[in-house]
Amino acid sequence: MSDKNSAIGVFDSGLGGLTAIKQLRKILPDEHFIYFGDTGRVPYGTRSFETVIQYAYDDMKFLSGFDIKMAVVACGTVSAVALPSLEKKFDLPIIGAIKPACAAAYSSSANGKIAVFATPATISKKAYESELMKLDASLSVFSVACPMFVPLIEAGYISENCEVTRIIASEYLSKLKGTGADTLILGCTHYPIISGLISSVAAEILGHDIKIIDSGYESALAAKQLLSERNLLNGNSGGSVRFFVSDETQNFKATASIFLGEPTENVTKVSL
Amino acid sequence: MSDKNSAIGVFDSGLGGLTAIKQLRKILPDEHFIYFGDTGRVPYGTRSFETVIQYAYDDMKFLSGFDIKMAVVACGTVSAVALPSLEKKFDLPIIGAIKPACAAAYSSSANGKIAVFATPATISKKAYESELMKLDASLSVFSVACPMFVPLIEAGYISENCEVTRIIASEYLSKLKGTGADTLILGCTHYPIISGLISSVAAEILGHDIKIIDSGYESALAAKQLLSERNLLNGNSGGSVRFFVSDETQNFKATASIFLGEPTENVTKVSL
Repeated sequence: MSDKNSAIGVFDSGLGGLTAIKQLRKILPDEHFIYFGDTGRVPYGTRSFETVIQYAYDDMKFLSGFDIKMAVVACGTVSAVALPSLEKKFDLPIIGAIKPACAAAYSSSANGKIAVFATPATISKKAYESELMKLDASLSVFSVACPMFVPLIEAGYISENCEVTRIIASEYLSKLKGTGADTLILGCTHYPIISGLISSVAAEILGHDIKIIDSGYESALAAKQLLSERNLLNGNSGGSVRFFVSDETQNFKATASIFLGEPTENVTKVSL
Repeated sequence: MSDKNSAIGVFDSGLGGLTAIKQLRKILPDEHFIYFGDTGRVPYGTRSFETVIQYAYDDMKFLSGFDIKMAVVACGTVSAVALPSLEKKFDLPIIGAIKPACAAAYSSSANGKIAVFATPATISKKAYESELMKLDASLSVFSVACPMFVPLIEAGYISENCEVTRIIASEYLSKLKGTGADTLILGCTHYPIISGLISSVAAEILGHDIKIIDSGYESALAAKQLLSERNLLNGNSGGSVRFFVSDETQNFKATASIFLGEPTENVTKVSL
């Protein structure tokens, strides 16, 4: 039976969820986290719904072998495609990336024109669109599938002046020209890694600033609220993270240390 | 017991092996092919050796459930990392991508300076390098890991004037400046899809032509020779291909039709 001292399970297709872990550690410093990154099968966002649902089930199954009090789906694609299916199969609270980001975008937008950048699977599922429409059917939503961002980020093309990533970002941002969107949801946890680049290219292409919503940050806030409401916040001080991945640990350790700004030694390879 | 009428099993991590199938169909038009593309777990070339070996075993295990007389590993990464392990575990002739390409490059090079473009896994395994050294220890080999080519090709950035792919190709080709390499092995079956672009950028960056070796084509020639030596060529006319993939079939069908220049309807999704 899980209690206040139980951990929070977090998973992603690979490295992207580390942006969520970073936010979770800041907002919930006294919690213990079990992170699973499916680095042996990343990326998810260009695969079919059926495959994403199967992989998400495997990931949650792995996490539910630990003593966890809730799960955070730190993957936009899984949140968009597989969340209802996970909620049916697992009996614990699950926070996805979609709802919190949509609520934040809705609060943030002055003109009701909201853009969404996400993986092809997330966009074709219309997950952000449907959630925003539930909040207010008069919103205008502009969705753009960004298949190249995850491979570029996983390959390290992340510096703000990286020419290739800027060209790809221009290609995606051009699709927002003339829409007047004042808010942009980064609907994949990888994307905040290049949010500086995206902002800078957006200013060039659109000629105006666009407010960026980081779905990982919003999910972390939502996780805190849920634990607080259920009186499940860990009262002891000093949280921790344990990492599990499905491919070798070395690359993951190196990249995770950079993302998190703290040494990341506690990484174990597992087979699902 | 397999005989002349048995099929040839071919596998790749995804779409790349289609370049090999195209060559195999040309060179062995009367043979039956069973192709498996592991589209649910592509790419392989950025994963660890251990994971590539496991996935390659799964792929061969699947193919060996059919009546096949030989297998062609239409994946540079698997050929580099997992071929000896497959040869130990499966009792049938297996043609990989490395040996035939190295032999062709050795014949082709006038000055003994040979470049290799391949995935990070293949390059770090030094597979082409070792094989070339076996042929002639006086050769100079220049190996370049090209992690972005597979994601770009899988996302369709393949036209000869595609700016992003040209920039990435320039980055990789710049590493050959001053080496004098006159021959370039494309050590991943995805790469021949952009061989025109690579040739054109090479001429710009290096200031001279470079002879391109397509490992899929060389493997197809080697497969024919092996069957001929063992008297296993199919004597009946009219070959065929059946495709199996581990993710949805729709994208695969569309892309396969383009690559092969023939309609590709016979595609089935399977779980490994």
